[in-house]
Amino acid sequence: MDLTVAGAAALDRADELAPFRQRFAIPDARLIYLDGNSLGRLPLDTRARLHALLDEEWADQLIRGWGNGWFEAAERIGAKLAQVVGALPHEVLLADSTSVNLFKLCVAALRAQPGRHVIVTDALNFPSDLYVLQGVLQLLGHPPDALRIVPAADGLSVAPAALAAAIDEHTALVMLSHTAFKSGFVHPLAEITALAHARGALTLWDLSHTVGAVPVELHAAHADLAVGCSYKYLNGGPGAPAFLYVHEDLQARLQNPIQGWIGQLDPFAFEPDYVPQTDLRKFLTGTPPVLSLMAIEPALDLLLEAGLARVRAKSMRQTEYLVALWEQQLQPLGYRLQSPRNPQQRGSHISLGHEHALGIDRALIEELNVLPDFRAPDNLRLGIAPLYNTFSELHAAVQHMRTVVLEQRYLKYQQQRPLVT
Amino acid sequence: MDLTVAGAAALDRADELAPFRQRFAIPDARLIYLDGNSLGRLPLDTRARLHALLDEEWADQLIRGWGNGWFEAAERIGAKLAQVVGALPHEVLLADSTSVNLFKLCVAALRAQPGRHVIVTDALNFPSDLYVLQGVLQLLGHPPDALRIVPAADGLSVAPAALAAAIDEHTALVMLSHTAFKSGFVHPLAEITALAHARGALTLWDLSHTVGAVPVELHAAHADLAVGCSYKYLNGGPGAPAFLYVHEDLQARLQNPIQGWIGQLDPFAFEPDYVPQTDLRKFLTGTPPVLSLMAIEPALDLLLEAGLARVRAKSMRQTEYLVALWEQQLQPLGYRLQSPRNPQQRGSHISLGHEHALGIDRALIEELNVLPDFRAPDNLRLGIAPLYNTFSELHAAVQHMRTVVLEQRYLKYQQQRPLVT
Repeated sequence: MDLTVAGAAALDRADELAPFRQRFAIPDARLIYLDGNSLGRLPLDTRARLHALLDEEWADQLIRGWGNGWFEAAERIGAKLAQVVGALPHEVLLADSTSVNLFKLCVAALRAQPGRHVIVTDALNFPSDLYVLQGVLQLLGHPPDALRIVPAADGLSVAPAALAAAIDEHTALVMLSHTAFKSGFVHPLAEITALAHARGALTLWDLSHTVGAVPVELHAAHADLAVGCSYKYLNGGPGAPAFLYVHEDLQARLQNPIQGWIGQLDPFAFEPDYVPQTDLRKFLTGTPPVLSLMAIEPALDLLLEAGLARVRAKSMRQTEYLVALWEQQLQPLGYRLQSPRNPQQRGSHISLGHEHALGIDRALIEELNVLPDFRAPDNLRLGIAPLYNTFSELHAAVQHMRTVVLEQRYLKYQQQRPLVT
Repeated sequence: MDLTVAGAAALDRADELAPFRQRFAIPDARLIYLDGNSLGRLPLDTRARLHALLDEEWADQLIRGWGNGWFEAAERIGAKLAQVVGALPHEVLLADSTSVNLFKLCVAALRAQPGRHVIVTDALNFPSDLYVLQGVLQLLGHPPDALRIVPAADGLSVAPAALAAAIDEHTALVMLSHTAFKSGFVHPLAEITALAHARGALTLWDLSHTVGAVPVELHAAHADLAVGCSYKYLNGGPGAPAFLYVHEDLQARLQNPIQGWIGQLDPFAFEPDYVPQTDLRKFLTGTPPVLSLMAIEPALDLLLEAGLARVRAKSMRQTEYLVALWEQQLQPLGYRLQSPRNPQQRGSHISLGHEHALGIDRALIEELNVLPDFRAPDNLRLGIAPLYNTFSELHAAVQHMRTVVLEQRYLKYQQQRPLVT
């Protein structure tokens, strides 16, 4: 691999997705943005859509907007998102936040299996997912040890066998982050789903770091439940509504604990007794935040236009390229690879450890126009969004990461707090 | 009262809030919009704020936006909203939807009072609030009759004595819509709160049809809990995030059942065990929808600039004016007043019943540029938003309501479905 700056430029020239970068608002082209795995960039089509949403819909249609698309948006956009996660159109909805959706589905899964109450997860899961699970178990009167957290032996990954050993006849749910937020490790979704089913348990996947970057086939794998956010690789905007997926075979059996207006069979009959929708819409609760919800659609259209297979292929090329650069240029300076080495086993970010990681992160941001993120205590996370990140950016970022260490620029920032990301 | 068109114009000239109409985007000045109680109009400042949010924050600050205001927005805007509901700044937060907030607070209130499980409400409550309550009781293992629904004897209002008769030593919670969605009846909040407390019960108020139109003093009345939406008289935008209020004396005692990232004491420590915030922020769960959340602030600033006392005074003048017009010009044509006659006992909308209400509603919309809303089976709801509705609009709307009946224009629309509002 040609690891020179000319080599990076050549890779960019050969990149068939390169033109997609121009579809995003990039007011400062000098900024090397490697945090698209936290907040994706603003697509130009989203900007135009929101201007129209304000002027033509909210201002002009006013309440009639509900009859002209807002009311069905959760389903319409959900059906598009279904293409990105290998689901059927009626298996995905946009609603609420990831945590609220996780709560709904987790409560539903436990109530549907009265003889089982254990939830199996792993130490790679996002902490707030654990908080939701802890809250659900307490609410339903189960002891804290009903949450089994399988450790990550190497700190980076958890093998299916380790999970299998934790799943038994008491297990109601196997709840995992498909792509780990820290190491980027990707669980084999179909294998673990089959393994859970073999023991009679359901699966619930958090796809926040997967969706838009790593293809999954939820329906074909017969995955039971999933949730995820839309503001990372989907570029849906800050805090954009989350999604939920329920396999069609399960939809009749499950009940939404947060019963609301939009989940009612006939919302406009204003009947005093709740009768749920017969399909996935039963998992809707309150009125959706329309501005934030609508922002997701143009971003999703852009991703579908690029094609997830091409995005994944470029992502794997780019993470491979970054790992090669690390090996040659960063490892000698004390950077450690804290992501799996095999590109099939990782998502679209690379984590690098360093004893001065916090100071490095801040120096990159404040002095060198590189924006990665930092995860305590020692982890730099370099998110690659193939729709707008170039090979040249990765090359330049690595040169800046060398500079920060060679010139000890991190010293100035060691005592500071990390940037809120 | 001068009920001529000249009289309406004179009232508008004397109206000190009249200039505020120019602060809203009104692309079609001919439209008489009487549905601001469902979706408020777009303030011009909100439009400008959202353009900047897209271009200067999402596009340019990217993830740094969280450190530059997004993360604290729920509290900052909540503190402003506190002024509108008579709460202390740290007693109000923006989050989620009204139904999700109602779920959180209702579960919290029931869990905090293990010896009590009955919820007292009334038949004027919004149906989806009943759905949430039904779901909570079922989830916590209580029988359906733990929900006591006090009937509305006259269909319009419920007297404190009727509620008092339903509240006893088993009552955990008195949960009411402060301003009824249909009749506009307003409960005496302080009186009912005192009455619930005298029997050891907590109160939970849905302020959706109150906030921004009817002053309340939550803290002074020692109201325990409240929720509400921000897209009606607050003009926060379609589906804008809701708010929740917890009296400061209760905050330490209550627990959020939907434990999430933002409610954690130190979200960025990424600790595996949930430790809640010590203040109201414990009731936050997931990442907020920033575009929709930020849209609330300029609208709230506009309301605070106008002053809620002046808004309420104009609202009462306008509902009085509309009732006077009804009495002289609509009552003879079969329109019935379905709101309380006393302006102190009603919010900012007037409900009129008519045997042809559905057809009238549609004819007004399709042929006469009047946009009210319809609530089954026979109710026309005329919402008055004092910040932009004029007396002349009310006068013209009444003339159109006469025309529709006199010319039987409703006949053409009798078989249609109501507009989704």
